[in-house]
Amino acid sequence: MEKSSRIITLTTDFGTSDVYVGVMKGVILSINPDVEIIDITHSVSPQDIYEAAFTIRAAYRYFPKDTIHVVVVDPGVGSERQPIVCQTDIAYFVCANNGVLSRVLQDIETDDTNTPKSVVIENASYILPQVSNTFHGRDIFSPVAAHLSLGVALSQFGAPIQDLVRFTVPTIQTIDNTLTGEIIKIDSFGNLITNISEDTLTAFLLSVSNDAEAVDFEIIAGNTSITKLNSFYAESEAGEPLAIIGSFGLLEIAINLGNAETGLGMKRDDRIVVRRFD
Amino acid sequence: MEKSSRIITLTTDFGTSDVYVGVMKGVILSINPDVEIIDITHSVSPQDIYEAAFTIRAAYRYFPKDTIHVVVVDPGVGSERQPIVCQTDIAYFVCANNGVLSRVLQDIETDDTNTPKSVVIENASYILPQVSNTFHGRDIFSPVAAHLSLGVALSQFGAPIQDLVRFTVPTIQTIDNTLTGEIIKIDSFGNLITNISEDTLTAFLLSVSNDAEAVDFEIIAGNTSITKLNSFYAESEAGEPLAIIGSFGLLEIAINLGNAETGLGMKRDDRIVVRRFD
Amino acid sequence: MEKSSRIITLTTDFGTSDVYVGVMKGVILSINPDVEIIDITHSVSPQDIYEAAFTIRAAYRYFPKDTIHVVVVDPGVGSERQPIVCQTDIAYFVCANNGVLSRVLQDIETDDTNTPKSVVIENASYILPQVSNTFHGRDIFSPVAAHLSLGVALSQFGAPIQDLVRFTVPTIQTIDNTLTGEIIKIDSFGNLITNISEDTLTAFLLSVSNDAEAVDFEIIAGNTSITKLNSFYAESEAGEPLAIIGSFGLLEIAINLGNAETGLGMKRDDRIVVRRFD
Repeated sequence: MEKSSRIITLTTDFGTSDVYVGVMKGVILSINPDVEIIDITHSVSPQDIYEAAFTIRAAYRYFPKDTIHVVVVDPGVGSERQPIVCQTDIAYFVCANNGVLSRVLQDIETDDTNTPKSVVIENASYILPQVSNTFHGRDIFSPVAAHLSLGVALSQFGAPIQDLVRFTVPTIQTIDNTLTGEIIKIDSFGNLITNISEDTLTAFLLSVSNDAEAVDFEIIAGNTSITKLNSFYAESEAGEPLAIIGSFGLLEIAINLGNAETGLGMKRDDRIVVRRFD
Repeated sequence: MEKSSRIITLTTDFGTSDVYVGVMKGVILSINPDVEIIDITHSVSPQDIYEAAFTIRAAYRYFPKDTIHVVVVDPGVGSERQPIVCQTDIAYFVCANNGVLSRVLQDIETDDTNTPKSVVIENASYILPQVSNTFHGRDIFSPVAAHLSLGVALSQFGAPIQDLVRFTVPTIQTIDNTLTGEIIKIDSFGNLITNISEDTLTAFLLSVSNDAEAVDFEIIAGNTSITKLNSFYAESEAGEPLAIIGSFGLLEIAINLGNAETGLGMKRDDRIVVRRFD
Repeated sequence: MEKSSRIITLTTDFGTSDVYVGVMKGVILSINPDVEIIDITHSVSPQDIYEAAFTIRAAYRYFPKDTIHVVVVDPGVGSERQPIVCQTDIAYFVCANNGVLSRVLQDIETDDTNTPKSVVIENASYILPQVSNTFHGRDIFSPVAAHLSLGVALSQFGAPIQDLVRFTVPTIQTIDNTLTGEIIKIDSFGNLITNISEDTLTAFLLSVSNDAEAVDFEIIAGNTSITKLNSFYAESEAGEPLAIIGSFGLLEIAINLGNAETGLGMKRDDRIVVRRFD
């Protein structure tokens, strides 16, 4: 038996107006009544594995070591895609092998020393006796997470699997004095979160000068041009569009005391361009 | 003193944007700080006891034995309807005697060996000193659930009551080769959940042949006709209407990667017809 | 070390569709895995410190003594406003010094014997190593609350602060036979909650007679006149506007089995007039 975990998190697209999330919690607590269950969010856009991948990656590193993260955004439920458990240096993930771990795996390749270990969930002892074709969150992922929290070893759940399904994470294009990224998430404040990290932006701006302050640039979001980087929101007037390195360490476009999604008419996957005046 | 319970669930129509649910949790934890409180949902349609009855019935069996379920969907709050505690073989329910337990009681008659025991909440020792006429979730149901979780015996709360209020659960009509049910719940994905169980559907289809596969039939939802039963969602094309036995063990009409409520223009209580081509 | 607390509540305007709330919980549990985290609400209107002040005041008194309440409605995040901890006789509050405690402090002046003690959060040992300018809920308020729950003394966090920022709470006007209050909150049922307390209303009506029942009056909400006070909602017909002392001890305008916000076309800050027919 491995060390037990006390915390299971849930990330789903089930919403909170139906019983699905409550039922998952009941299944977990029936197996391990001492676990603490934490909702990350149940409002991933329905069946959107890209958003799910962003969400779990943005959250998991803030939890205690060995927290078990259940991610159920699973348009292929009941079909051939495999249910898996993936163990990294700092956490466990229980989910479908459909790409939802793409961004977590990208992190690990960059930062961690050990290769993650994954297994396909096959052992009927750790799932519900009757498995539906529509709700593996209840029938497979919740009971597996609960047994994992009791200390069942990874190898007990099924055979190892090497290559997890991954989608291509959108990359940054830099051509001459133009850097092009895209909006990868819009939060509920309407903030436009891009895939341009603080490091990438700094390197791009400093490539012509050692003093970022001295570099002239504009950030183009649709029809709007922003020519400075805020340190905090309230530095701009109410209603004014602004650019800022947000809490994910990524460039965000926002409107102070307003909503940039509706105010600027932008949507996910739209391009954000940074132009440097050399 | 009876055995104490560790888990209290909440099912209400209070939403989560006001303080009502938080206040209920504060009241519970002030009486028993060691209980774990689980939200089933707070998004039952306002004052809809039919939906509440569906919700609690769909969830309660997945929780550990002796879990305490608080259900507050209570349009008659402050009027003559009685607050009750109902104990079954596997759970406790704390709610108004207004029909919200109709579907739970139907289950019990079918499956369980023992008759449930119910009492009217009368003992002022177990409710808040001041009882409002608008928020019994705070003043009566939460403190009673908390005391119950500490092991207070059912009989301590008040006098026994025999006949709980129940509404008539919509039934299935079978006439010749036509079975007529209805939509009893639409979930947040827009899936249309009917009152036609897998057993009922199988018996109807097999009444003319021992091989369900060989039976021709159509399922009619508004203007849409569906002529097969899916095993899983992804078996259909994106945007295609489909029929499936869902996670409640009931016939559901869905649209793969879409929303059947808006896509087919259906609403709760609408009829769903299964026609067998004999 | 002071006595540790077991419960931390969260009140924010972050919504539950993003990862922000989940991340705060991860940070808290990484510091104190044994604390129980309770959501009051995450649906305070974005950046609305008035609504946040109403919300936390309506909820905190129902929680166990020494509960830690984290309030993150913070339009000035990253600017000069100070992060604080405020300790009263019955609770701790961790928030920005921006007025969100205005109503709590008003309570304390009226009811409590001891002056609250507050400190500015300055000690880097109790916050995250990297502090962003956009998400102090994660970087400052959550870790401080978690350390507080472990028993760290108030004085350890920083220097005392005397005068907290407070906004003016809207007051009642009484001129001759007319009492004028206003709508301070509309709940998700559409109930219009006013700032007219039961005591104020009773004193106003009884100022001409010892028998409140014998006093004729009307309550004016927009174009609607209501001439009696309900004891409970169901006393009125479905769809009928009504006035009632609600669960906050305040006069509320509601529509039985309906929504007074949309039905009467009212919004927050609108005036509600009570006219006595002397």
